[in-house]
Amino acid sequence: MYIDIATLFPDMVDSYLNESVVGRARKNGVFTAKCHNIRDYTNDKHRRVDDTPYSKRQGMLMQAQPIFDCFTKVTEGRNRPHVIFMSPQGKVLTQQRCKQLAQMESLFILCGHYEGVDQRVLDKIVDEEICIGDYVLTGGELPALVLIDSVVRMLDGTLSQSDCFEDESHYSGLLEYPQYTRPQIWQGEEVPEVLLSGHHANIEKWKREQSLLTTLKKRPDMLKTAELSQSDQKFLENNR
Amino acid sequence: MYIDIATLFPDMVDSYLNESVVGRARKNGVFTAKCHNIRDYTNDKHRRVDDTPYSKRQGMLMQAQPIFDCFTKVTEGRNRPHVIFMSPQGKVLTQQRCKQLAQMESLFILCGHYEGVDQRVLDKIVDEEICIGDYVLTGGELPALVLIDSVVRMLDGTLSQSDCFEDESHYSGLLEYPQYTRPQIWQGEEVPEVLLSGHHANIEKWKREQSLLTTLKKRPDMLKTAELSQSDQKFLENNR
Repeated sequence: MYIDIATLFPDMVDSYLNESVVGRARKNGVFTAKCHNIRDYTNDKHRRVDDTPYSKRQGMLMQAQPIFDCFTKVTEGRNRPHVIFMSPQGKVLTQQRCKQLAQMESLFILCGHYEGVDQRVLDKIVDEEICIGDYVLTGGELPALVLIDSVVRMLDGTLSQSDCFEDESHYSGLLEYPQYTRPQIWQGEEVPEVLLSGHHANIEKWKREQSLLTTLKKRPDMLKTAELSQSDQKFLENNR
Repeated sequence: MYIDIATLFPDMVDSYLNESVVGRARKNGVFTAKCHNIRDYTNDKHRRVDDTPYSKRQGMLMQAQPIFDCFTKVTEGRNRPHVIFMSPQGKVLTQQRCKQLAQMESLFILCGHYEGVDQRVLDKIVDEEICIGDYVLTGGELPALVLIDSVVRMLDGTLSQSDCFEDESHYSGLLEYPQYTRPQIWQGEEVPEVLLSGHHANIEKWKREQSLLTTLKKRPDMLKTAELSQSDQKFLENNR
């Protein structure tokens, strides 16, 4: 997968992409990412990329020209990538959409900043607007990193075999069961006995039930869309 | 506001907090943030902070002891901060919750990593679990930054007067109207005439209507909870 990120803060984005699991995947060639400074593409002799909006007196907007030229120069001679604008107006990101994006060959991610971006360049180049949640942030950089993190971790080669992710919260539509590691007793609190039993079937049953209980308690809305067996449903009825 | 962040990747978090609008606010003393490396608090002589989970054979969990000791030492002799665990199991963050958190004196934010955290330390210290959205990420660091960014920008002194935010998407429960800046004509596309008219009442009307139309088109679900006047409702009925 090939990912281009157009931003006014390329160092901020680039440095995160070198860290942790994502950084290891990048180093191993699981994906290629390039951060482009939109400021490098402005025609303005003072390197300006923003100007006041027509619609109000306050704030600054990113201008169309630098963004458009950044996009055309970066993608010159290549297949057109899927262009995403990180925007509070976008569709809210879901795990389902991350899975679909992980199938794509190349993404071009535009990060807005200041009060926003001139609508005309968005109309011209953007295929999809994505929002990571219903809250306001200072720019598109963190949302872009959230998107890249969630997409890249699903690419073959990012997670090692030991980083299994099938049980994780949201992956299967349920929240994960509580987890415990050594020591067996910590500050007087013991690990649930069943986990020490070695009885595989009982452990699996406990995990499923705890997962259902946790979801019921914390995110009952998720139960509406989760895939539930008959015995799951019966268990939930008895515990509501 | 005082913010402590407990993480295995303190540099990653710290470097973001020095950038852009948030970095400026930090420098100006609008808030204080300290990143703590959980690894510095482990009793293990090899500096280990994780171990295998009891519930499955794969993956690694963060242990209780280093997190608990980090929390107690960092908060020693101070009023107990509000403790937030960034978790896929948390309540999904909203702008409303950000506003409430912006009122607090001090926050302690715990970032998980690997497969998760031993449940016992979460039960012991965490006041609130927050999730930034229904997708899986490699760790709690990006979510913590998202939370801090959205909270800090609402503190007095973060945004300059020119960074007005009342019109922004989500702030008022509606998406923002499209925005335009110079030049007036770009690639043959003109700025909407009304914005050039100087007629204040017409411009305000256009902004409100465009905001309603954008929300109707992109996020009709938000109209259910937005504050709408009678004329807003009439306009929407005529444009559905």
